[in-house]
Amino acid sequence: MEKEDDIYDVLVVGAGPAGLMLASNLARLGIHVKIIDSRKDKTSTGRADGLQPKTIETLKQMRLCDGLLEKGVKVWDICFWESTTSESLHRTGRQIHYPPSLVDVADPFILLVHQGMVEDVFISDLAERGVRVQRDTTFTSYNLTPMQVGRVQPIHSSYVTGAGEKKLIKSRYLVGCDGARSAVRQSMPNSKEAARAENEALWGVLDGELDTDFPDLWSKVVVHGEGKGSVLLIPRERNMTRLYIEMTGEGQAGTKPHELKQEDVMDIARSIISPYRLEWKTVEWFGKYSIAQRVSPSFSHDNRVFIAGDASHTHTPKAAQGMNTSMHDTHNLAWKLNLVLRGLAKPNLLNTYVSERKKIADDLIAFDKGHADAFAKGDGEVLQKNFEENVNFISGAGVWYNENILSIFGGHFITQQLSSAYTGLARPGHLLPPASATRYIDANPVSLSTAIPPLGQFIIHILVSNPTASSSALDSLCQSLSRPSSVLQPCTSKATRSYAHQSRPRVPHDDFEQPQRYLQASEIYTSSFVTTAAKPSFEIADLPPLLRKSPWTVYLDDLKQTDGFGTTAPDRLDGVTRKWFGRDLAEKELAVVIVRPDGWVGDVGLWDGERRGEEAGRWVNGYFGAFLDRGEHLVRARL
Amino acid sequence: MEKEDDIYDVLVVGAGPAGLMLASNLARLGIHVKIIDSRKDKTSTGRADGLQPKTIETLKQMRLCDGLLEKGVKVWDICFWESTTSESLHRTGRQIHYPPSLVDVADPFILLVHQGMVEDVFISDLAERGVRVQRDTTFTSYNLTPMQVGRVQPIHSSYVTGAGEKKLIKSRYLVGCDGARSAVRQSMPNSKEAARAENEALWGVLDGELDTDFPDLWSKVVVHGEGKGSVLLIPRERNMTRLYIEMTGEGQAGTKPHELKQEDVMDIARSIISPYRLEWKTVEWFGKYSIAQRVSPSFSHDNRVFIAGDASHTHTPKAAQGMNTSMHDTHNLAWKLNLVLRGLAKPNLLNTYVSERKKIADDLIAFDKGHADAFAKGDGEVLQKNFEENVNFISGAGVWYNENILSIFGGHFITQQLSSAYTGLARPGHLLPPASATRYIDANPVSLSTAIPPLGQFIIHILVSNPTASSSALDSLCQSLSRPSSVLQPCTSKATRSYAHQSRPRVPHDDFEQPQRYLQASEIYTSSFVTTAAKPSFEIADLPPLLRKSPWTVYLDDLKQTDGFGTTAPDRLDGVTRKWFGRDLAEKELAVVIVRPDGWVGDVGLWDGERRGEEAGRWVNGYFGAFLDRGEHLVRARL
Repeated sequence: MEKEDDIYDVLVVGAGPAGLMLASNLARLGIHVKIIDSRKDKTSTGRADGLQPKTIETLKQMRLCDGLLEKGVKVWDICFWESTTSESLHRTGRQIHYPPSLVDVADPFILLVHQGMVEDVFISDLAERGVRVQRDTTFTSYNLTPMQVGRVQPIHSSYVTGAGEKKLIKSRYLVGCDGARSAVRQSMPNSKEAARAENEALWGVLDGELDTDFPDLWSKVVVHGEGKGSVLLIPRERNMTRLYIEMTGEGQAGTKPHELKQEDVMDIARSIISPYRLEWKTVEWFGKYSIAQRVSPSFSHDNRVFIAGDASHTHTPKAAQGMNTSMHDTHNLAWKLNLVLRGLAKPNLLNTYVSERKKIADDLIAFDKGHADAFAKGDGEVLQKNFEENVNFISGAGVWYNENILSIFGGHFITQQLSSAYTGLARPGHLLPPASATRYIDANPVSLSTAIPPLGQFIIHILVSNPTASSSALDSLCQSLSRPSSVLQPCTSKATRSYAHQSRPRVPHDDFEQPQRYLQASEIYTSSFVTTAAKPSFEIADLPPLLRKSPWTVYLDDLKQTDGFGTTAPDRLDGVTRKWFGRDLAEKELAVVIVRPDGWVGDVGLWDGERRGEEAGRWVNGYFGAFLDRGEHLVRARL
Repeated sequence: MEKEDDIYDVLVVGAGPAGLMLASNLARLGIHVKIIDSRKDKTSTGRADGLQPKTIETLKQMRLCDGLLEKGVKVWDICFWESTTSESLHRTGRQIHYPPSLVDVADPFILLVHQGMVEDVFISDLAERGVRVQRDTTFTSYNLTPMQVGRVQPIHSSYVTGAGEKKLIKSRYLVGCDGARSAVRQSMPNSKEAARAENEALWGVLDGELDTDFPDLWSKVVVHGEGKGSVLLIPRERNMTRLYIEMTGEGQAGTKPHELKQEDVMDIARSIISPYRLEWKTVEWFGKYSIAQRVSPSFSHDNRVFIAGDASHTHTPKAAQGMNTSMHDTHNLAWKLNLVLRGLAKPNLLNTYVSERKKIADDLIAFDKGHADAFAKGDGEVLQKNFEENVNFISGAGVWYNENILSIFGGHFITQQLSSAYTGLARPGHLLPPASATRYIDANPVSLSTAIPPLGQFIIHILVSNPTASSSALDSLCQSLSRPSSVLQPCTSKATRSYAHQSRPRVPHDDFEQPQRYLQASEIYTSSFVTTAAKPSFEIADLPPLLRKSPWTVYLDDLKQTDGFGTTAPDRLDGVTRKWFGRDLAEKELAVVIVRPDGWVGDVGLWDGERRGEEAGRWVNGYFGAFLDRGEHLVRARL
């Protein structure tokens, strides 16, 4: 099927978690993607191993998490141990890792699963859609011809096969997910030298099954021995434990990577864990690496070539951030590439990938510096404080973006009713906190973060307290979304044609998932209707035609909101409306939350006047008008 | 590998849900099982489709439920519609199917998945353990030589291959899971004629994708049209709906099976659903059957041959009971066969299979009669009342057994402290209600019903409010369980030898599950320690050696207990101890709940005296002494 002169929509270089997340998302959306990797096989041992709560949510939404949840180890708490010259080793603290008071996530734990298992999940997902990773294929450089008026040349990427043959791949976009020594980055202008942070420490990492009487083997544990150094213990699947040792203890600093042996790491660990016994029944992997905290000065070349994951930022491994941030880099990029490739969004949408993910990389490095310093010093108190301050960020739930065309800070949210009195948690640029509601049509309690399968769509949540009293406002809002003069209606028509021509591949699981349920109103967005009204007070048939088209996204806001420990949310947050808007809605209020395809909030609005329906409609169209492209040209036609 | 003269431990006839549940459980326990089926292939369309909450729990415990939960449709509510000669069709009721006020289950919904999907899960599970279903193999009869002193002859079962060849299988036990026309039953003395109930109605069943404007397509719906009859609508996976029509409307009664056509069922349904439109986009299956409510007079022949599932009882399909009851028949039998085959329990343990499951079959028929009558009459009010009265039974959570050697009603539970003031939900012969607790070792919140993988073991839950104050009582209890003169200790030694000789097959998932964590104290039982004490007040290392051996079953009773709707349990039930015992324990109280390998409660005890540890130990040994066999002979040696 594949030919030398095929032009791919996207070439992904690197089949680690970042590259696979990207390829899997693109393939699901019907984008013609090629993924190559220099390695002969997938990751079999070592490397990353922790999935954070937000990543779990993303994988759940993609219906890829069940197997990982079944096999992985869940870390719910963190322990601190310390010995000094005067005190023998003792536990100084033991606390919930993601306490509901600080972090609001549906799955408040770290899921420890080996990187290879995460890669496997994506590899199967891709295979179902006819995409396989082309291995033993080393990208060398690319050639990007600058855009000429109305005409774009494909990018030419050179690679070398395992047999040493030089070859070429043509693609409209190129994304380097090829790790810290990224060849794609090195091909980019102005990105050869990444910013270098101060501390570059040597780490030893050891995976294996322990024989020990140390009691806290199934928590995340930081053990510091004064003058001996620090060890971080992480439980792993298959009864293993991972040890991280940073070479900062006495006589350890300055050790060169080639000098560090597995037995050295064991000896240091034994000395720190003493008087507890520490032996290894098996060792699966020993790794050592010298880590610099770096952020690439540029994440893109002309919005045609991008880098993501370790290719764009590196940092220490302690807080289990690398694999997660990397996957969210490309999760952020995938839906944007899809919209731009289909000509549904203007190419400037891609600017937001760079601005959003570079901000996160900078945040991550800033956090990591403080965290690494505290860890190296072994000051339990400082470490705990640093941890608590950053725990929301670490979980992924506290990752937020600055204002841009997708996240409107100065819009309705700031200037209207919401303004200063607003205590809601639906905030532009932030993730929508988890909330559960009863799906009207089948009475199933569902999580609003994961109930709708990811189809590259925005979700327009429309909330009222009384559907009957709000009936004409709802009509007006829905009409203005469907009006030919709006932005959404012509883009919807255009999207229908685009997906008819280049459809999302159908897979066996779709028979059960029934994705078409969410595509009746538009391929661009799914409407969602959320109300605190009692079920008997209205029928789906009473709603405006646009909402009736999407009966699977009509929700009753009637469930208690509980956290991972079974505790009910405080009254002011107990419900979708309360959680998102900080209070109940009045009978004549109409609220809207626009959620981006990646789960971040685009904008939030609330209206209460007679013309609230029209106003909300204009506002929604205004939001989409900033980046959707209603023009009839398709980017692909220009290639 | 397989030879003609192999003697199997158990021959299972019939690879429907009952037979597969049995074979899968036996194979997991290391029992040499053979399973045959007359059909050429597994069930591909039609037949049973609903899994009840208790069955979901059982499959969750077996780690077999994830895929089904992902693919199936969940029914959370039930709707009633009616038309009369004076009133057009309208909804007369809509209610939660398993309201927490009536039914306490972790998953309060019916999971609609096609029987073939359930069979698939077991077939894969068996294949992992090297057992495959031998198809196209029709059992004809068996030959059981009565037991002679100290010597048992294997059962000779005859079968015919697809090619018409007559063959023989030898086995120690034989279980007929071969459906309503069971050839095994027909071979049994005194079981040829099953008891016949009065009403035998003709049913038409139709699976397909509907085109309709009827609004309640994703609930369980009963629609009655006066003079037209009744239709039961059940949502199905893959966007399908199942219709059940009982031929009881005017002009329908007396219809013979061969006269009933698919188009007739459609016409009746259209007439009942009118004025709503009702058409079929696709039809996957049309079935018709005439159902008699029957219970076989005997479930066993000399405790060597058994029947289960439809072979032993048949009834109407309306309440989605058949597949569930059938699987629980054999789930009940499997662990008993394992213990007896290994010589760990006396053969009289098998009497309890017959008495327990015959009682359930009788209960089921009694319920079904009332339910079927109400359904046929179309009296919504009577039907709702019948439903509410039986909803606990329907869910599977309300299924309870009469007193026998496994369920001790007149023991400590009745006569001691627990007596009349007892409001706890841990009751002999009943299922232990779901409860969640924090696992001490890894701080994971877990369900006590599913946290421990099923290894054919009893669970001895030991509860105290203060481990320090109860330290010597715990020591005494644990010592009396480990004492050579006890029942449990010699049986544990015997079990160690038995499993060393005939081990549970190891499968890849065990690397993640780590079943050996639950086998450290004994193959016969797992200890479980549950306490309301705060985590910092004790370490696992402070517990008696027996409990220390099982660190993965030490639990903190510190979680809010919530239902499927996020609502917290009332104060008096909010916690494991409160739920099980109806109140908190005093500092000097020691409580024990013995749970059978199938999840039913064996006995419950509570002590508060100085010698509470010894007393509890004697009591536990007394429980097991009634059926465990500490003798050195092994049944297999006698064959």
